[in-house]
Amino acid sequence: MIRIALDAMGGDFAPAVPVEGAVRAIEESPATFEVHLVGRRDAVERELHKHRGSGERIQIVDATDVIGMSEKPLAAIRGKRKSSIRVGLELQKSGSADAFISAGNTGAVMAASTLLLGLHPGVARPAIGALFPTSSKPTLVLDAGANIDCSPRELRGFAHIGSVYARDVLGRPEPTVGLLNIGEEPEKGNESVRGAFDLLKSDAGLRFVGNVEGRDVLSGACDVVVCDGFVGNVMLKFYETVAHLFRELLEREVDPDVLASDGMGRVFRVLDYAEYGGAPLLGVRGVSVICHGSSPVRALKNAIGVAVRSVESQLSQHIAAELASDGAIA
Amino acid sequence: MIRIALDAMGGDFAPAVPVEGAVRAIEESPATFEVHLVGRRDAVERELHKHRGSGERIQIVDATDVIGMSEKPLAAIRGKRKSSIRVGLELQKSGSADAFISAGNTGAVMAASTLLLGLHPGVARPAIGALFPTSSKPTLVLDAGANIDCSPRELRGFAHIGSVYARDVLGRPEPTVGLLNIGEEPEKGNESVRGAFDLLKSDAGLRFVGNVEGRDVLSGACDVVVCDGFVGNVMLKFYETVAHLFRELLEREVDPDVLASDGMGRVFRVLDYAEYGGAPLLGVRGVSVICHGSSPVRALKNAIGVAVRSVESQLSQHIAAELASDGAIA
Repeated sequence: MIRIALDAMGGDFAPAVPVEGAVRAIEESPATFEVHLVGRRDAVERELHKHRGSGERIQIVDATDVIGMSEKPLAAIRGKRKSSIRVGLELQKSGSADAFISAGNTGAVMAASTLLLGLHPGVARPAIGALFPTSSKPTLVLDAGANIDCSPRELRGFAHIGSVYARDVLGRPEPTVGLLNIGEEPEKGNESVRGAFDLLKSDAGLRFVGNVEGRDVLSGACDVVVCDGFVGNVMLKFYETVAHLFRELLEREVDPDVLASDGMGRVFRVLDYAEYGGAPLLGVRGVSVICHGSSPVRALKNAIGVAVRSVESQLSQHIAAELASDGAIA
Repeated sequence: MIRIALDAMGGDFAPAVPVEGAVRAIEESPATFEVHLVGRRDAVERELHKHRGSGERIQIVDATDVIGMSEKPLAAIRGKRKSSIRVGLELQKSGSADAFISAGNTGAVMAASTLLLGLHPGVARPAIGALFPTSSKPTLVLDAGANIDCSPRELRGFAHIGSVYARDVLGRPEPTVGLLNIGEEPEKGNESVRGAFDLLKSDAGLRFVGNVEGRDVLSGACDVVVCDGFVGNVMLKFYETVAHLFRELLEREVDPDVLASDGMGRVFRVLDYAEYGGAPLLGVRGVSVICHGSSPVRALKNAIGVAVRSVESQLSQHIAAELASDGAIA
């Protein structure tokens, strides 16, 4: 039985939303996993009692501290040793859980994951993998915000890690990788990207399609888009507002019945990040999934699915093997 | 009478589209300007004859060379002295025209504009200003691709130049400026952005609203978004594919009548870059407007409007004055 530790105190609507996400995940999925809700026992119990028949495959792990969404990550992690983020990750460290999920303070989850789970050899800092919805299969973009400046070698590392994630969790047996740039030509871009182009091109362990541009992210030109965390974060947050703009325009210009139609519901469902669960923190030894603070129940439920697939597929072990192979670490 | 030099040989559908763009602009606008079509006289004349009554306020300036869309910019500009790009900009240099517009090789237009028009004092390289459609007024993002790495001082220069453009051409009397970053806090971002934050914050000549994130570009959080040309270019090209994704999803999920409705037409019109004409090349002494290679007639027509407004409002003179004022050049 796979054991998922879920931060019950993380996110704008905690503990209600994480608890309900866990209940729904268990209702709707086969009995391959259980959820450990990590947080203040009384608050979590109170939420849990609102849901019928929810005792099965759910247990509570008490954590008396809570890290606020705007606390300084490192100070919070060091100071609050009984925080739900720390306690939840310690479960994985000690072998009592297989994965951790949080919609709480992203910086704190990243720092604590790095500190407690450790990193695979060859990884300097973990990367955030974000799924960008397209009209067919989503595109994995990494890094989406953990690493501001990236060396060519780090970018190559993202290419390998992203390829493993695409194979294991997204079901792409032969994932292709593109390097985000401002033109197709190898001489385009800043020093780091130009250096990464050369490394990626000569790496026999990757299916590198060359430079891709902003316009290629949604076209399905490749499975994995590699970039530094600055541009990845800007693009991700930009994209997350596009559905909202589209809805505003439709509200103004088309019939309300059209907007309320099933078809339009399906359109917005494709564009809804909640469909894709959370963003994996890649490069750590283990499984750590970050969700938006504003995640609804469906996002938490789907993040549990992402975490279960990551454990089942042995994602972390495969990333370690990939990085240890010849091509990955120079 | 304002004189607009238009590259009749630039773009994927030249000379047909530039010529028709000029004809439509003149038909639909007051008689404040004339258009000089720069290109191979016979080819341009042939196109022009397809349009009735088009002789008025249009003249042809012969240029026997054409720079291809994929030629190396500097070599092409130096080698092809009779190219439409070079001849068109020389008209402005010699005082025979007030503005230049091209849907041709962007790099060549940038290089030739810099070389022939020169730059305002304090400008190291020109910046491309791109308008991002929102549900209300568009947001100006610069740089959108001319400058890959930017120093804090260059970013501050973009803030000043963008503010002038917003006032003069977009009609925003008190434009606000945001610095694109991955978080609101001053300590976020790379070294260049952190340095720019300090410069912008202490600059009394700007209405600086602080760091903005990817999610703020479409929300109308500010009139001008300042960023380096790498992230600006990625975000612009990404955005340009979003309308296409919407259309694909709608085609799959909703009734064809809905997609063909007037309301939906208005939605896509908001998102269509052709509405906004072209992207001004800012920092040059004069007016130079760059259009997409794939621009339709409407984009060229609207680019002429942008160029006319730029000349009428004395944009270039105002940028020079802004940069010469205390705040702008340290």
